[in-house]
Amino acid sequence: SIDGQRLWSSLMAMAEIGPTANGGSCRLALTEEDAAGRRLLIEWCEAIGCTLRVDRVGNLFIRRPGKRDDLDPVATGSHLDTQPKGGRFDGILGVLAGLEVFRTLHDQGIVTERPLELVVWTNEEGSRFAPAMVASGAFAGEFCEAYTLSRADRDGVTLGQALEASGFAGEMPLGEPRLASFFELHIEQGPVLEEEGEAIGVVTGVQGMRWFDVILRGQPAHAGPTPMAYRRDALAACARLIDRLQGHALADSSGGTKVTVGCLEIDSPSRNVIPGEVRLTVDLRHVVESELDALEARYARELDAVAETFGVEVRSERIWASPVVAFDAGCIDAVERAARAQGVPWRRMMSGAGHDAVYVSRVAPTSMIFIPCRDGISHNEAEYATPEHCALGAQVLLDAMLERANT
Amino acid sequence: SIDGQRLWSSLMAMAEIGPTANGGSCRLALTEEDAAGRRLLIEWCEAIGCTLRVDRVGNLFIRRPGKRDDLDPVATGSHLDTQPKGGRFDGILGVLAGLEVFRTLHDQGIVTERPLELVVWTNEEGSRFAPAMVASGAFAGEFCEAYTLSRADRDGVTLGQALEASGFAGEMPLGEPRLASFFELHIEQGPVLEEEGEAIGVVTGVQGMRWFDVILRGQPAHAGPTPMAYRRDALAACARLIDRLQGHALADSSGGTKVTVGCLEIDSPSRNVIPGEVRLTVDLRHVVESELDALEARYARELDAVAETFGVEVRSERIWASPVVAFDAGCIDAVERAARAQGVPWRRMMSGAGHDAVYVSRVAPTSMIFIPCRDGISHNEAEYATPEHCALGAQVLLDAMLERANT
Ligand SMILES: NC(=O)NCCC(=O)O
Ligand SMILES: NC(=O)NCCC(=O)O
Repeated sequence: SIDGQRLWSSLMAMAEIGPTANGGSCRLALTEEDAAGRRLLIEWCEAIGCTLRVDRVGNLFIRRPGKRDDLDPVATGSHLDTQPKGGRFDGILGVLAGLEVFRTLHDQGIVTERPLELVVWTNEEGSRFAPAMVASGAFAGEFCEAYTLSRADRDGVTLGQALEASGFAGEMPLGEPRLASFFELHIEQGPVLEEEGEAIGVVTGVQGMRWFDVILRGQPAHAGPTPMAYRRDALAACARLIDRLQGHALADSSGGTKVTVGCLEIDSPSRNVIPGEVRLTVDLRHVVESELDALEARYARELDAVAETFGVEVRSERIWASPVVAFDAGCIDAVERAARAQGVPWRRMMSGAGHDAVYVSRVAPTSMIFIPCRDGISHNEAEYATPEHCALGAQVLLDAMLERANT
Repeated sequence: SIDGQRLWSSLMAMAEIGPTANGGSCRLALTEEDAAGRRLLIEWCEAIGCTLRVDRVGNLFIRRPGKRDDLDPVATGSHLDTQPKGGRFDGILGVLAGLEVFRTLHDQGIVTERPLELVVWTNEEGSRFAPAMVASGAFAGEFCEAYTLSRADRDGVTLGQALEASGFAGEMPLGEPRLASFFELHIEQGPVLEEEGEAIGVVTGVQGMRWFDVILRGQPAHAGPTPMAYRRDALAACARLIDRLQGHALADSSGGTKVTVGCLEIDSPSRNVIPGEVRLTVDLRHVVESELDALEARYARELDAVAETFGVEVRSERIWASPVVAFDAGCIDAVERAARAQGVPWRRMMSGAGHDAVYVSRVAPTSMIFIPCRDGISHNEAEYATPEHCALGAQVLLDAMLERANT
């Protein structure tokens, strides 16, 4: 079985790459830090006889041969990129647990029927290049190669350019290799498992999410002599929009509605200038697709209302929509059996975060395994999962993969 | 009398330095552009026999000798620095009208009893270095030299360092020379004169203003799985604060209350991260000091309320307070006489913007002259005043200065 100590050591070693001031990690997608993390992983995998292939959007496919290499592999994986002030577990755990699965099988000289594949998906976070999960989306046919490579960061650097610079622009066509099934281990990134005292989440699907790029354009003017009633203050309009959307989401007693404005930037900000232009991002989520439609409609109405009230022009572009996903019943059952076998409390649950498994589930039977994280906190340097939970999650992953790889 | 054509040409020539895309100017204080603007002015002044002295905070004193150089000079002036996307008139008109006064007297061979002084005050806007009007404040004894030189911009460059780099670090002690009186011509920067069809504002004083640097600190977390009720969203708190303050200001039917948030920055922004920390600036103004006290108290209560409601820590530092100012009755009357003499509609009025005249008024009898600006817009590339109004303002300035310089 899994060596929890070794898994923990590899997590901590990865966290040394791009460390942040408060114990987190910064490895934005396809930066030098991200590339260094990838190289470290490849080194570890090659040391146990695995081989690497890289596809055209930089996804890494690391193979452990099986007895029947003509069969499609059973795969696992996640991502190594992080948020600007990210944690040490989000994505990384799923990759390094896959490594730990390989190492465990290697130590015990076990060769599975099917080959196994550890996948590192490029740019999962969506923080440097929007949308999130763009490269697993490209693998699964949601996004074409040209679209994916043309995603640009704030500085105008494209994903394609960053890929070349990182040395991870590969040759393998998108969609290869076909996967027999896919399991992704991840921290929950929310508070449910911890609060309920459960050790494993058997993930049945993922909530839907929609991303918007928004511009509010009013009129810059002097903060002193400009009467309040004359103003077309883009920031005041934006504040009203955020406050109304927050209120709407909080009023949903089911807790299903989620609204987040993560980025907001004033054009040419100055203390004594009424903001003339504000750019912001909006992230809307719901576990029910029709409710997400209703949320988007509500958002559009609130936007129109502030345009009217504040005399500002608004432009909102929906740049991403990831529908509500239901995972494969067979894979969910495999995870549930593996969890039961551990004799720990577990639950079936939906994921609030997007994961590469969302897109992979379109082309291969897929499910996910969650473990608790402290205070439910993620996308934060303080993100933490215990060594015990990490090992437990890796064990469930190993068991689910073995079941699938030997049948 | 004033050559309006020549004044307009010098305004347009100055606007060539640091031009912006939409016809405005960008000469942030003590940048290379600001220094180039100063050099151009000095060249023009030296060509008509004026001499330059520079004080320790970079204020330029350009003297036109009088018959009695033992007497204190009658002074005028304003500033050449601009907002990041500033206009071609704010400050510049006051300086170049002073130049035009000197040129007119030069052409006509007029020598006044008292010497005349044209002053260019450093960093009036407060956009690069807060607070605004810091160098006229240093001249007037409001700020000591050490404080003034230690003001830092966003990149940590101090005003003192920028002064050295610009070549305008002077030797003259602060407070020199003593001024017999000071007149400042400026665009109104608000809509009143234009709306009332008046050509001259006789400025009786300036509203009070207070600036705050604010930090809201919540907890960064994942936008997807984090329930709304668990969030400590620093941006949502900030949005509520702004919306409440706007509502409060708009509810004042006297129009006296003004609130502006000009800068707002999220720490490590990312679309799918609940903002953990937001920094913003708050600008509060009122024409009545006790009302300004009440406004500040209200602001503090709203801040406490959002801290409570959103579970965020708040820190607010008042970095500047400029009290309500009343100008000198004699100087106001001199401006009024000069305005009447032009036979145009005029009014007495308060200034909504701060001006160097605010601080100068503490050490010398002072008043100001306003002319209308289009749509009341300022701190905007579209800022505009007609050549006729500019010439009229300069004429009133000349007449008021002559009255004072010959008595
Ligand atoms: N797991 C994770 O943080 N994914 C990023 C995509 C999202 O915003 O949900
Ligand atoms: N006139 C002017 O724009 N002054 C800047 C100081 C203020 O914000 O009022």
